[in-house]
Amino acid sequence: MIFRVQILGSGSATPRLHRNPSAQYVNVLERHILIDCAEGTQIQMQKYKVKPQRIQHILISHLHGDHYLGLIGLLSSMHLNSRKKPVHIYAPEGLKEIVNMQLHYSKTTLGFDLIFHPLVGNQPEKIFEDKLIEIWTIPLEHRIYCNGFLIKEKEKPRNISKEAIKKHGIPIAMMHRLAKGEDWVQPDGAILPNEELTINPPAPRSFAYCSDTRYSEKIVDTIQGIDLLYHEATFLNNLKDRAKKTYHSTAEQAARIAKLCGAKQLIIGHFSARYMEVEAFEEEAGATFENVKAVNDGDIYDI
Amino acid sequence: MIFRVQILGSGSATPRLHRNPSAQYVNVLERHILIDCAEGTQIQMQKYKVKPQRIQHILISHLHGDHYLGLIGLLSSMHLNSRKKPVHIYAPEGLKEIVNMQLHYSKTTLGFDLIFHPLVGNQPEKIFEDKLIEIWTIPLEHRIYCNGFLIKEKEKPRNISKEAIKKHGIPIAMMHRLAKGEDWVQPDGAILPNEELTINPPAPRSFAYCSDTRYSEKIVDTIQGIDLLYHEATFLNNLKDRAKKTYHSTAEQAARIAKLCGAKQLIIGHFSARYMEVEAFEEEAGATFENVKAVNDGDIYDI
Repeated sequence: MIFRVQILGSGSATPRLHRNPSAQYVNVLERHILIDCAEGTQIQMQKYKVKPQRIQHILISHLHGDHYLGLIGLLSSMHLNSRKKPVHIYAPEGLKEIVNMQLHYSKTTLGFDLIFHPLVGNQPEKIFEDKLIEIWTIPLEHRIYCNGFLIKEKEKPRNISKEAIKKHGIPIAMMHRLAKGEDWVQPDGAILPNEELTINPPAPRSFAYCSDTRYSEKIVDTIQGIDLLYHEATFLNNLKDRAKKTYHSTAEQAARIAKLCGAKQLIIGHFSARYMEVEAFEEEAGATFENVKAVNDGDIYDI
Repeated sequence: MIFRVQILGSGSATPRLHRNPSAQYVNVLERHILIDCAEGTQIQMQKYKVKPQRIQHILISHLHGDHYLGLIGLLSSMHLNSRKKPVHIYAPEGLKEIVNMQLHYSKTTLGFDLIFHPLVGNQPEKIFEDKLIEIWTIPLEHRIYCNGFLIKEKEKPRNISKEAIKKHGIPIAMMHRLAKGEDWVQPDGAILPNEELTINPPAPRSFAYCSDTRYSEKIVDTIQGIDLLYHEATFLNNLKDRAKKTYHSTAEQAARIAKLCGAKQLIIGHFSARYMEVEAFEEEAGATFENVKAVNDGDIYDI
């Protein structure tokens, strides 16, 4: 029951040798999702053994280069490696025009379908669902239109207690109704409540990616009770004026959001290239929210 | 008197961990030139300690992704690092539109001038000169419009023989005329020919970059007597049909061009990702042209 987040890039605008700009790979129940795709992401995927051809959904937060410039190269490589399966891209409107123009000038017709889902809303919006998961936007406050993303499991069916079933002689045909939470009406008309027949399933797990954004409590409702929160922390708090001016957050602010939404774990990244070491980010955030980690490229977080 | 070529990427379409796609840095007499700029080139520059802010001219051969996708990221980083000096870009026409669209959607106004020099010709054309060097296009045969580039020193002034000057008592004011090749008319009217007063200057040095291209002898005149020739060799000769079909060359074909133009040294690259080792390229080319090297990322060639 995998729900894994792998960091492919944890830096901000300018790439560094050991810290590429933003990209994350999420495998949730074998749904393969790429969030953001900075220049060099396809190389990072090779380095960390993430297979590009498995990616089904690509979520792009916004159209600053450090969040999408690797996309066209990744798509080209998928094409050159004979991909046939479609790729869904969820991104601000301009991206389709940018990608199509680049394909036009290189006289390339991709061998697979590229399905663009333009993002335009300013409220959280469900952009994908199947029988097991949902993906939502998290509108953020940045210099240009920008969304974070919430990936969560759907409520799982209730686990049926084999002993209770046997004891009460409930027919097999009822099982899927019990799993949905229905009570059992016995032949004599007496009602056996569902909670005597089933056990709570594991709680649905969730991950939120919030980058790039100024400190904003507006997102707290959407990510309430999140299991794993990635929140950008471009600066330390002594540069909080600069953070506000450039529509970014500090480590302390990321921690405040994690605390407000009752996150179980916080991971922070998108560090400004001015910082050579990032221990100070963990320390600063840790004073407000204990379970925090400053991420590095290649890190894996299992939920 | 530096004339140095540094390989920043020696692979073809799809990047590999130890072989990035095309980019080369040329320092000719402190003119700093970047030829092609694949995705990840700015990272390669960090790795090989090439300073982006020194680059004055960027030459783009054609609009396949593995030759230009790193450009917008490089320009963004130059901007974020407070560049003020202009950048000249020599490239096929569409590139200006692509770059401007990406700047538009990221709401970025660069802090320096970006001067596009669109390339449209089908004959060799001088696209830059100053007092010491010239840059020419080398039209190539590829699937889309594509140019190689010839970078050469101008003819140097003749070296004046101090002994001859002293012996004949020639005035200082004459020196620049002697350097240009003039004879000296002595006070008695007798002529002292220039070659008795001066020594041949070093021959002007030259470098040609020919990628991507099908085997074509049309380029031989333009690069006749070249000191250092970089010619693409995407395939080995057992795939020469494939090379022709995809508008690429084989190692043997690159060597034939080097031989035909009387090159002093041949370097080959743009190897297809199917080849893990490239010794076979050197061997195949070496049978036709002895002084050949299959390049690796980071290699430096001094002329």
